[in-house]
Amino acid sequence: MTQSNTQQQSPRSDAANVVNGVDLEVLGGTVSAVQAEPELGVCRFRARNTWVDGARNESRVTGFYGAAQEIAHRQPFTMIADEPPILAGNDDGANPVEHLLHALASCLTTAMVAHAAVRGIRIEAMESELEGDLDLNGFLGLNPETPKGYTDIRVKFRVDAADGDIDAIRELAEFSPVFNTLTNGVNVDVQVERK
Amino acid sequence: MTQSNTQQQSPRSDAANVVNGVDLEVLGGTVSAVQAEPELGVCRFRARNTWVDGARNESRVTGFYGAAQEIAHRQPFTMIADEPPILAGNDDGANPVEHLLHALASCLTTAMVAHAAVRGIRIEAMESELEGDLDLNGFLGLNPETPKGYTDIRVKFRVDAADGDIDAIRELAEFSPVFNTLTNGVNVDVQVERK
Repeated sequence: MTQSNTQQQSPRSDAANVVNGVDLEVLGGTVSAVQAEPELGVCRFRARNTWVDGARNESRVTGFYGAAQEIAHRQPFTMIADEPPILAGNDDGANPVEHLLHALASCLTTAMVAHAAVRGIRIEAMESELEGDLDLNGFLGLNPETPKGYTDIRVKFRVDAADGDIDAIRELAEFSPVFNTLTNGVNVDVQVERK
Repeated sequence: MTQSNTQQQSPRSDAANVVNGVDLEVLGGTVSAVQAEPELGVCRFRARNTWVDGARNESRVTGFYGAAQEIAHRQPFTMIADEPPILAGNDDGANPVEHLLHALASCLTTAMVAHAAVRGIRIEAMESELEGDLDLNGFLGLNPETPKGYTDIRVKFRVDAADGDIDAIRELAEFSPVFNTLTNGVNVDVQVERK
């Protein structure tokens, strides 16, 4: 895993077209294109996962469909999942429900940063802590009444921005795709065939 | 990013208490403990995210609460999120909605592998492909009628196991916490305070 080299205190670019590190010309180009031709907004994101052994498996992401074309990432990304020893794993990676928290944290952050940039709201720093409640009686099948998934997730952001902008920044979280997926639910079709 | 060194064809352990790479004594110990004292199943998983710049941010996972105690991972895990250039990012990591697919893939895989092991169902290999539909008209705020999150996610597993076990393995996917979180939805409380 790449170690964090967060430089949270570094000055953001002062270029007129860059706010919160977001190049508004680039983002504006995408917005204009989708506005002119809404079909360009249709995306299909993808991942491919391979079971390694026990609780360990790995996903690989190489590209996606968007703007009416296949778009390759600049490099493939590999994400590792494992479980801690208490769940019979080797603890070689965050576990699936921790990866879910990362997906949520990163999406909320990106949504607020990008939408703030478009509105000219400057953010100097942002960090968050997430906590999700999950009762293993569900996953382990010990109590059919116990929900198997998260029941509640709490996210606390601390944002370095003008005092008057904090409420507006909070509202921008509502644009986050992962936030919306989790709060509204989504159809998931699972098919299993023999290899 | 750690590169994949998947050894999908390697023989699984033949030890009597290890099925699908899952140590049934260890897992059985956890199950017995939670069965005897259901409160031990209550878990709180956590992540901490720091915005780096633009579309890039990083989450760190160090431990969780479970079995009535704080449990540290053997090592901290860092997950990086970024966006592709079309969304004004530098493409330094999978994006948040791709991380969500990884969370789902890994959780479904782990649920099937572990529950199959407990039932004595042997799995030789397992891989999956995921695809999620997301219309950027929602996230970009161009059409208030467009859902901002995923509307459909399709997961196709290919499993090397006995022909007669495939249907049973598919049913075990229903134990997956991430699958249940996504299909049922979850309460997400987002608070933003000034740093």
